[in-house]
Amino acid sequence: MGAYRVRAQRCLTGEALPHVSRIHITAATQDAPPGSQPPAQPQWSLRGITSNERYVTRSEKNQLAAIQQSIGAPGATFAALIPIRKSPEWWALTQDERREVLQEQSRHIEIGLRYAGRIARRLHHCRDFSESEPFDFITWFEYQPADERAFDDLLGELRATEEWRYVDSECELRLSRDAD
Amino acid sequence: MGAYRVRAQRCLTGEALPHVSRIHITAATQDAPPGSQPPAQPQWSLRGITSNERYVTRSEKNQLAAIQQSIGAPGATFAALIPIRKSPEWWALTQDERREVLQEQSRHIEIGLRYAGRIARRLHHCRDFSESEPFDFITWFEYQPADERAFDDLLGELRATEEWRYVDSECELRLSRDAD
Repeated sequence: MGAYRVRAQRCLTGEALPHVSRIHITAATQDAPPGSQPPAQPQWSLRGITSNERYVTRSEKNQLAAIQQSIGAPGATFAALIPIRKSPEWWALTQDERREVLQEQSRHIEIGLRYAGRIARRLHHCRDFSESEPFDFITWFEYQPADERAFDDLLGELRATEEWRYVDSECELRLSRDAD
Repeated sequence: MGAYRVRAQRCLTGEALPHVSRIHITAATQDAPPGSQPPAQPQWSLRGITSNERYVTRSEKNQLAAIQQSIGAPGATFAALIPIRKSPEWWALTQDERREVLQEQSRHIEIGLRYAGRIARRLHHCRDFSESEPFDFITWFEYQPADERAFDDLLGELRATEEWRYVDSECELRLSRDAD
């Protein structure tokens, strides 16, 4: 939550998001309708919703829960915002086929597990708001500045997978907030 | 799409929807924003979005595709609207656990397959719009008047399953439109 300074911004695939110097993360609660929240005139805005998990098994979830770093940890002053869209081919796959690509072929959950102790992660779904959202997912990461290299490695591993062949739009914003 | 007469309305579990005599189904396309659509002052409204399938395997999908009756078939003048909410316990399950309850324990997909030739079905997701939607899903059914008994049987079979122990809100509207 709150304001973050943009340290670097790039789009790897698909449409570019106009460059910005700061981003503001707000919670769209019922108490605070979107219209009442700063900034009043953003250059762009994205929205997503946390939801039930769609791929992890109970055993994977338990492994993650045991080690997963929490959002908002002290010292985790670096963050990243990665909006992604997957291709129509991905969405035409059935659940078992998507799980096969995501984990059996790409080891997505396994890769995530190796970094989960240092890098906090929260996934937001966009695609279910409407068919005209620019991205399907927004993933939010938080970590300590000393873990930036580990974060690079995490992204490098994921982007080399079979699953990423289905990514047709991806941007990346590296962010920082003031130290605690 | 269009207006339907309500033949019967009841709520089986959870909150009741106020009784109405007609319902109007509209598509929230980009061309026709919700505000421009009739009726201007509904007693209540529900919204949902069709989305990717979340449980069927490729083999089940292919079986369904081979026999599934389409929405809008001539003569299918009866319809039903069934909004459902599932409990927090359901949503705390992982994907493999939900699939286990839905198919391995409850044979939901198998039951559906037995009726799919006569009863057209379209599932809409509500839960991903916001956490404050009154229901998680709206299922829409269409069938010929002669198949009303089969439709009763379908609902009876589903409601007797283990999966339905996770349903904490369910209403049912039986509808009709003018014959073709």
